Amino acid sequence: MNNFIYQNPVKIVFGKGQIAKLPELIDANKTILMTYGGGSIKKNGVYDQVKKALAGRKLLEFGGIEPNPRYETLMKAAEVCKKEGVSFLLSVGGGSVLDGTKFIALAANYKAGDPWDILAKQATANEAIPLGCIITLPATGSEMNSGFVISRESTKEKLASGNPLVYPLFSILDPETTFTLSKEQTANGIVDAFVHVMEQYMTYPVYTPLQDRQSEAIFLTLIEEAPKVMENPQDYNARAAIMWTATQALNGLIACGVPQDWATHMIGHELTAFYGLDHAKTLAIVLPGILRHQLKNKEKKLLQYGQRVWKINPTKSDATLKAIDKTEKFFRSVGIKTKLSEYGIGKEKFSEIADRFRRRGMRLGEHQAIGSEQVIEILNLCL
Amino acid sequence: MNNFIYQNPVKIVFGKGQIAKLPELIDANKTILMTYGGGSIKKNGVYDQVKKALAGRKLLEFGGIEPNPRYETLMKAAEVCKKEGVSFLLSVGGGSVLDGTKFIALAANYKAGDPWDILAKQATANEAIPLGCIITLPATGSEMNSGFVISRESTKEKLASGNPLVYPLFSILDPETTFTLSKEQTANGIVDAFVHVMEQYMTYPVYTPLQDRQSEAIFLTLIEEAPKVMENPQDYNARAAIMWTATQALNGLIACGVPQDWATHMIGHELTAFYGLDHAKTLAIVLPGILRHQLKNKEKKLLQYGQRVWKINPTKSDATLKAIDKTEKFFRSVGIKTKLSEYGIGKEKFSEIADRFRRRGMRLGEHQAIGSEQVIEILNLCL
Repeated sequence: MNNFIYQNPVKIVFGKGQIAKLPELIDANKTILMTYGGGSIKKNGVYDQVKKALAGRKLLEFGGIEPNPRYETLMKAAEVCKKEGVSFLLSVGGGSVLDGTKFIALAANYKAGDPWDILAKQATANEAIPLGCIITLPATGSEMNSGFVISRESTKEKLASGNPLVYPLFSILDPETTFTLSKEQTANGIVDAFVHVMEQYMTYPVYTPLQDRQSEAIFLTLIEEAPKVMENPQDYNARAAIMWTATQALNGLIACGVPQDWATHMIGHELTAFYGLDHAKTLAIVLPGILRHQLKNKEKKLLQYGQRVWKINPTKSDATLKAIDKTEKFFRSVGIKTKLSEYGIGKEKFSEIADRFRRRGMRLGEHQAIGSEQVIEILNLCL
Repeated sequence: MNNFIYQNPVKIVFGKGQIAKLPELIDANKTILMTYGGGSIKKNGVYDQVKKALAGRKLLEFGGIEPNPRYETLMKAAEVCKKEGVSFLLSVGGGSVLDGTKFIALAANYKAGDPWDILAKQATANEAIPLGCIITLPATGSEMNSGFVISRESTKEKLASGNPLVYPLFSILDPETTFTLSKEQTANGIVDAFVHVMEQYMTYPVYTPLQDRQSEAIFLTLIEEAPKVMENPQDYNARAAIMWTATQALNGLIACGVPQDWATHMIGHELTAFYGLDHAKTLAIVLPGILRHQLKNKEKKLLQYGQRVWKINPTKSDATLKAIDKTEKFFRSVGIKTKLSEYGIGKEKFSEIADRFRRRGMRLGEHQAIGSEQVIEILNLCL
């Protein structure tokens, strides 16, 4: 096991009816800015629940945060914070709204230069407006971590950063708020959570039997529960299981003491930036490509994964490839495509994508074995 | 899944050489009281590592905290805190030292009456001296929770309480500090951690597939790693796996959204109070008795446990009893006895023990199905 430091201060408030607890969770004297996305919270009743719970509080609103939240939009919200003296941010929606809200929290008080530096130069912000969230789409795990991914429309960039100051003070997870998610949103969330675990698990063994099994617990739960929520969106039990599982997939716990990959996310982010594909859809395409490309580097973990998660006999010569096939089939079983060609995307921009990694001087994967040439090889496997 | 709230602020600093990080973890201006037990830390080098790391700091010492830490001893330490203006407590040792230190932290500033009320009357203390720990015996999980169990010599009582103020600010877990544990201490720790998971898992199903598998991950890891550390006490990998597993067994995570039992602990505490048996040894005796007594109430979970942890076919009529037998055999495999008679203990004091629960008006177990009569029935199964 590698040495590690683990600390996660987020207060999780889980279960039906928990939005009513908001008044206990936010100090009475705060000027609150509620942030949200395209308005689905107005249709599913969450907006009304928040307004009711916070009646009498100083409550402002900023809606319209996009999936793949945009720097340009978020800077407008940061301006509102400065102008109105906002002292608490309440993110209501999915991981994009929350990621965006984390950036707003840091950008509003950032004085050292252009807030985009927080992403482009990994500049450290030393101040943040405190924030909490109601998460309504189990997927990103943003509700229990300090990371965020932001897109910039003008440059077609999508970049990630993190700061301990933007751990949510609390995250309310009410599975009933997920009943109205579309099949597509639900499936995207399941794939996103699944691939988060892959990035932390599918590397090479460093003797972490507990963390391995904790990761496999997440895979197995997602595989078992996915068909239930796809068939019956109002299955509280299955929705609750998936919601808590998505949170556990990226809260730092399964990352304790293990090497990590994240190449799928890095390449996936470029596919979103270039083609506007949903985040999870890019992961479902890139992951199988990377696993096939890195078959030897990941062999031991692939065999363990195949055996424990898919009951594939590890002594068979095609056991690793079978494990990848099973994974791809699982994504397809919830309706997510796994090939670029299925979206009409060819190899035209592969060099341009690879160039970005070259210019950033970035090599990817747990062995830094993936340079810009390998990015092209991998993308070819994704056609 | 039941509704739940989860928050755990402890900073875990895990791995070899991490004691050297102490100066970064404790503010320079603190007056530190280092607490410890019978002096094993002086033999295994941990004491010297602490002294070296904190050279130049204002560092006092209080040694001699017993296994099953005693109120009488701890009150002396609380006096030292008051007299010397101690502003940080550093617990160095196992769970007993840490539990004791948590009580010292609360007792030193307790003004509402006799600090024993914190245990006997579950009185709430509103102030605590901040504390951190170096844990050297993987067992209790105290390093990542806010609970503590204290014994009172004069009344032969052993009682538990908790307070969020005594979450350690940090816990250093260096597996190398466990190399010098005796086989008996190592085995006690493994059994303790195992039974902690049992208390949170072996109840009745409420649709928590992830938490179930997280619990089973702990069982399987303990079962796999136990023989390795019993055979080679200096096996870093296995020691590290067991250390992290013991912490995960009682940090609140697997308790999320599930019913809990704790009858084994409640009855076990009385066996320690009456006979002075080690905590873990009481658990290894009482757990099988309770499982056999509560066979019907726990049937579904016993079948799942038997199948997933011990590969017992759940359709066989003796599947539940087999699962209990396997558990008992596991305890015996690390050298821990599972019958009272093996310690020369008979039924003489059973009524007196049962009386204590009657007087406290306490019924035990996830269904409150265990009253004082059932306590006697269970103890008879433990002979």
